[in-house]
Amino acid sequence: MAINPSADIEVTAFSWVPQPAQGLVKDLRVRWALEEAGLDYRVRLIGMERPAGYAEEQPFNQVPCFRDRHVQMFESGAILQYVGEKSEQLLPPDQQGRYRAIQWTSAALSSIEPFVQFRALLNNFWADREWAEAATPTFDQLAHLRLQQLSERLGEKTWLEGDRFTIGDLMMVTVLRIADRSSQLTDFPNLAAYVKRGETRPAFRQALSDQLAAFREHEPQGEAA
Amino acid sequence: MAINPSADIEVTAFSWVPQPAQGLVKDLRVRWALEEAGLDYRVRLIGMERPAGYAEEQPFNQVPCFRDRHVQMFESGAILQYVGEKSEQLLPPDQQGRYRAIQWTSAALSSIEPFVQFRALLNNFWADREWAEAATPTFDQLAHLRLQQLSERLGEKTWLEGDRFTIGDLMMVTVLRIADRSSQLTDFPNLAAYVKRGETRPAFRQALSDQLAAFREHEPQGEAA
Repeated sequence: MAINPSADIEVTAFSWVPQPAQGLVKDLRVRWALEEAGLDYRVRLIGMERPAGYAEEQPFNQVPCFRDRHVQMFESGAILQYVGEKSEQLLPPDQQGRYRAIQWTSAALSSIEPFVQFRALLNNFWADREWAEAATPTFDQLAHLRLQQLSERLGEKTWLEGDRFTIGDLMMVTVLRIADRSSQLTDFPNLAAYVKRGETRPAFRQALSDQLAAFREHEPQGEAA
Repeated sequence: MAINPSADIEVTAFSWVPQPAQGLVKDLRVRWALEEAGLDYRVRLIGMERPAGYAEEQPFNQVPCFRDRHVQMFESGAILQYVGEKSEQLLPPDQQGRYRAIQWTSAALSSIEPFVQFRALLNNFWADREWAEAATPTFDQLAHLRLQQLSERLGEKTWLEGDRFTIGDLMMVTVLRIADRSSQLTDFPNLAAYVKRGETRPAFRQALSDQLAAFREHEPQGEAA
């Protein structure tokens, strides 16, 4: 249990989100990295109505935000790297290993996430719009191509660079979970197995459990089953 | 002139792309950063038909790739950081300044680019699809919201963190150029002026000129005006 109200590191997360977003909100990435690195953190929970002045911390009104006594920042990609620099578990110390990990973090955010995210939006939030059905093949094809390319690159390896898990895998697994939840991984058993390997890590389980515990505690009246 | 065939750093770029992509291909980001840092580089030009085995270097069949005697990698976000670490011009040495720059690089790739990129695709490549017109308000609204939030955050500042230009601004300007080219910045004069400030930097002009020079030299027969 790494949540500690007097920890130096603070992570901002939502107290509650609707069910389809539960387990996918991006503070999970930071919680997971902190668990892997063995670092305590405290959680600041905010409501869907953001606190006054929140846009000064996070201009896009999202989570997570991160702070400790040295830095204050947003964007999970940047935060993962900062946490990674505190732990050789997550970011190899040699230049090539380090930059391969950073490269995969960037690839997850830039070359995979937009395509699976828009495909997932079409499947979920936009499903009832008049144009959704006609647009689906275009978005499907884009996401499928990128997943195909990633699947070929991963092959039978355990992690993207071989045997060693890095922040690149951590970010990629969280991005592929978006795809998995909207059934985009059915053609790519090696990617589905890769996601499962990530989800089986004790640090991931703890992070997910802690995100979901906050949602259960702050379930709005009348929303519980 | 920083292109030097015997330089240690190699950047892979396309020898030619169709006109709508000219000036937007992502090796521009790396060329620009290298110019800002005052580092020589050699260019490896590849055709739209990628060389055999290229997917081993770049699994998504894109450019840029980067290599020197220490590292080999793809993803402009990771490369910008590597170049930034060679020059205080681009990445401040203090922890907070450094991570704010990395944060903005990540924000450009993850919180802005997907939205303006899909909006631009709808405007250009998908304009004649039957669903394009009906889908436009949804994509417009998404991109507009993020640009509005960024515009509010930038305010009247010169660069995202004030007076100092970093890799975060470099990445953000190149992302906003996608928006600018598909007329998404008309409501945001401060963002349009920010793009102009970036484009006026001598390092940007040199980088753009060098990208375009290769395209002119490799113009396919019958494509010239």
